[in-house]
Amino acid sequence: MSGNKRIVVVGGVAAGPKAASKARRLDQQAEITVIQREPELSMASCGYPYYVGGLFNDRNALLSAGTGPVRDPAYFWGVKRIMARTETEAVAIDREGKTVLCRDMRTGATEQIAYDRLILATGAVPSVPPIPGVDLEGITTLHNMTDTDYLRRIHDERKTAKAVVIGGGLIGVEACEALRESGIQVTLVELQPQILSFLDWEMAKLIKNHLRHKSVEVITGNGIAAFLGDDGRVTSVRLGDGTELPCELAVLAIGVRPNSALARESGLAVGATGGVIVNEYMQTSDENIYAVGDCIETKHLTTGEPTHAPFGDLANLQGRVAGENAVLGNTVTFPGTIATGICKVFDYAAGATGLNEGSARDAGLDAVAVIGASLDKPGYMGGQLLISKLVVEKKSGRILGAQCVGPGDVSRQIAQWAMAIRGDLAVEDLVNADLPYAPPFSLAIDHGIMMAHIMQNKRKGRLKGISAREVKETVDGGAPIFVIDCRDPEEYREMRLGLGEKLIPLPTLRDRLDELPEDKNAEIICYCRVSLRAYEALLILEANGWKNVWVMEGGVVAWPYERER
Amino acid sequence: MSGNKRIVVVGGVAAGPKAASKARRLDQQAEITVIQREPELSMASCGYPYYVGGLFNDRNALLSAGTGPVRDPAYFWGVKRIMARTETEAVAIDREGKTVLCRDMRTGATEQIAYDRLILATGAVPSVPPIPGVDLEGITTLHNMTDTDYLRRIHDERKTAKAVVIGGGLIGVEACEALRESGIQVTLVELQPQILSFLDWEMAKLIKNHLRHKSVEVITGNGIAAFLGDDGRVTSVRLGDGTELPCELAVLAIGVRPNSALARESGLAVGATGGVIVNEYMQTSDENIYAVGDCIETKHLTTGEPTHAPFGDLANLQGRVAGENAVLGNTVTFPGTIATGICKVFDYAAGATGLNEGSARDAGLDAVAVIGASLDKPGYMGGQLLISKLVVEKKSGRILGAQCVGPGDVSRQIAQWAMAIRGDLAVEDLVNADLPYAPPFSLAIDHGIMMAHIMQNKRKGRLKGISAREVKETVDGGAPIFVIDCRDPEEYREMRLGLGEKLIPLPTLRDRLDELPEDKNAEIICYCRVSLRAYEALLILEANGWKNVWVMEGGVVAWPYERER
Repeated sequence: MSGNKRIVVVGGVAAGPKAASKARRLDQQAEITVIQREPELSMASCGYPYYVGGLFNDRNALLSAGTGPVRDPAYFWGVKRIMARTETEAVAIDREGKTVLCRDMRTGATEQIAYDRLILATGAVPSVPPIPGVDLEGITTLHNMTDTDYLRRIHDERKTAKAVVIGGGLIGVEACEALRESGIQVTLVELQPQILSFLDWEMAKLIKNHLRHKSVEVITGNGIAAFLGDDGRVTSVRLGDGTELPCELAVLAIGVRPNSALARESGLAVGATGGVIVNEYMQTSDENIYAVGDCIETKHLTTGEPTHAPFGDLANLQGRVAGENAVLGNTVTFPGTIATGICKVFDYAAGATGLNEGSARDAGLDAVAVIGASLDKPGYMGGQLLISKLVVEKKSGRILGAQCVGPGDVSRQIAQWAMAIRGDLAVEDLVNADLPYAPPFSLAIDHGIMMAHIMQNKRKGRLKGISAREVKETVDGGAPIFVIDCRDPEEYREMRLGLGEKLIPLPTLRDRLDELPEDKNAEIICYCRVSLRAYEALLILEANGWKNVWVMEGGVVAWPYERER
Repeated sequence: MSGNKRIVVVGGVAAGPKAASKARRLDQQAEITVIQREPELSMASCGYPYYVGGLFNDRNALLSAGTGPVRDPAYFWGVKRIMARTETEAVAIDREGKTVLCRDMRTGATEQIAYDRLILATGAVPSVPPIPGVDLEGITTLHNMTDTDYLRRIHDERKTAKAVVIGGGLIGVEACEALRESGIQVTLVELQPQILSFLDWEMAKLIKNHLRHKSVEVITGNGIAAFLGDDGRVTSVRLGDGTELPCELAVLAIGVRPNSALARESGLAVGATGGVIVNEYMQTSDENIYAVGDCIETKHLTTGEPTHAPFGDLANLQGRVAGENAVLGNTVTFPGTIATGICKVFDYAAGATGLNEGSARDAGLDAVAVIGASLDKPGYMGGQLLISKLVVEKKSGRILGAQCVGPGDVSRQIAQWAMAIRGDLAVEDLVNADLPYAPPFSLAIDHGIMMAHIMQNKRKGRLKGISAREVKETVDGGAPIFVIDCRDPEEYREMRLGLGEKLIPLPTLRDRLDELPEDKNAEIICYCRVSLRAYEALLILEANGWKNVWVMEGGVVAWPYERER
């Protein structure tokens, strides 16, 4: 045995190879071994849905970097002198002896592999509900290359007519799109009252509406009770309320759990989330063992609470930190997450960073939120709509989180907000932000800056905002309320909300004040397309003595309910 | 005369109407007047080049918001109760009497308009060089609607064969594209050694190369001496070195100066930049007079120095601040600029925020810079190249500035960096940034985070970087140097730099160490496509005893000089 440091990494998808590569860069002499259950290494697992959907067709693209070679054991040895042992399972850890018991899954042969530092990157496992019929053929997750190959075959064969996707999180929504792109009629079933739990309800509802617009049927607030089958193959899904959805395919996407069994069995500390507990150096309760990626729990930087954040980008960053610390001792840290995420939904995107209104409330923070909408760039440059919700701490104005959905450039918006949160910025820091502006890229007042302006106006008490949900509940509840649509007649003719609203185009408002309630304390709600004109209407009405005027935030474009056409 | 506050705004393009609108929102009683020289109001002047180039064809799109009505005096009165007086010139200010002498440019009639608060938004004037022939027909700027209409006619007529654009700033580069889209052969002439001065030389050179690739001839380091003409029409441009460029059209884009004559003549303080001096409330040296937009100078937030920053986004933000302060007293501030900008260059973009390496040095800052390249998202999702240069303060690692060019999503990158600078973040804050990742939007390790990683490696002394320029100068100077191309043979066959380099693909390096200089102190330079493999090569060589190994930053894709094919 040489005197070189022995680094053993368990897990070969994202965090593991990254940790191994970083360790190699910093120590050319170390003996580095990666233990990987699957035949493949370094898979671009976030790309699975797009390969399934036929957005690209080269399977090897999931296994290589750019135009480079497939990252197989020969590649890892040739380029990085990393011994990658695929189809090999880490069965147990002897922490005292500092060895990992491994089993070759092809031969069954076992072997003790000694380590000086061990890095666990065992990933997550998809949750599978313990319900009747779950083992029928035609039921799959979308978690690994086997699942991916299975679903891609279905894509290529074009024989499947109907599918049910169970679970409306990121993977579920991505699976819906992939299956639609495979010519399959899709129903999405979600137990919770909304899909995409990183969004607040009304933002998620906009995405639900868009999925329906793309012919994905979406059922929320309904779980699955059983899978029914015929001849061992799934033929339908029975929901909690008894509904039966015929299908030849069901994709389970109800979430993932940290794959922390090996750590737990080795006596390492595991948290309430099910994730391995690590410190900021990515070190477990055993100083010789690090853990990274989907198998750990991570600190949420705003709440300070541990959270399970199974994101590919964080896995890579954590792997980089553990790889360095494993060879150099604890020198670098991974501070935590603000739960930034984004998801393609056909020609829309949905993204969020930080806390949403619900999670801010759950964290005991006194938050104020606002919804706004605008194009991402000028209409004449092909600008597309963005609808955002900004959440800030009431007293300080500190940015707690932001959500953004729509066909526009959601990616830039969420990236901006993520950086703003990282910099601990407040609304007042952002109202005059200096962002890259030219008509091909943004509005003169960028959508994000506009959101800060709206929030500033709200915090100063100038814009009294009311959410679409409150408006809907008020109207449905039959409360006396005067609703003004401030848009132009053409816009109104094309589509309207049907709340018993009165059309008073903004340019005519000053001359039509006599049509408003005489009672200056009457509740009045104004809206327009994005509620900018409605804000001007509110200011005019307040100047004329009305005391209870509200702007419906986000206007018509952010209205999550039915409309009249 | 009523007792209402009288607000007079001089200038009706961007900052002026914004100030007037904000004032109206906060004071429904104020008498608000906008004085505008041109017949149009509220023009989307940043959109002129795209209308000229035919990217869109509706002239009214430049004069309206989205699908809304044209913002003419009737609109301003009807919707906002703002009196907009177009084709009216503000001739003089009587600061003691608090009146503006105005002249109706159609009738010549003059009138004194009284103000309580005056807001100057007089914009900028394009610089016109005092050289022979500059008044010939066929010579224009691209600054106002008249210029725009003129150039759009040329676009539509398709009769012009050759044009010269003078000045390689943002407008000049945008004009080149617009003229190419008009079927015109274009030569761009720039007096300085590089175009796009917000970029460092080697980044600008990449854009110069791209312009040439798009059939725009680019001549740098050469000024214009005269315009030659025939029958009153321009026929060619004579350069400083005597070259004559035949053309039927010349577009002057050598920059703009603050239009501060009215302020200066009124005795208001004007700075060395030529811009009106204002405090953070946008207030001039006269407490009753505010100034905003392209006519003022603004504080650069990093250097603290006054700068002329004629950007449409800042004009709007400043207008918003002045509008509020004019009616409410000084309550809100505009802190300054970090000179964020972006420019479309055909299918590329070029953007920057903060200081570049040159301006950081000029500001006396001890800066360190690095160049890096990657795709913006995975290749399988159609990822496009981004090449960035990151500039940080040497000691603290504080981000001073970033530049980014390429066909990829430059907009998000620059927006991220702008927010990072606003949050006063340092490299160590960004190596683990939590940004929106999904394959349709970014790499698992976002390009910007990768830049932070490279900078971190450089600051820790792990990555010894050398710029392409230094490599070129060293090779051209004949210094003994051993250059290794670490790419694969296929990449090398397709294109190479031709520096006398030796092809040693990274996977073969460990077995070919005997081909390297015996002298362990020999200077060795490694590169690959983006210099990630080259970094691994450096680490291998250092581990084998070579002491002077350098990575050429940015690799082949950032090489600004000729290549061999």
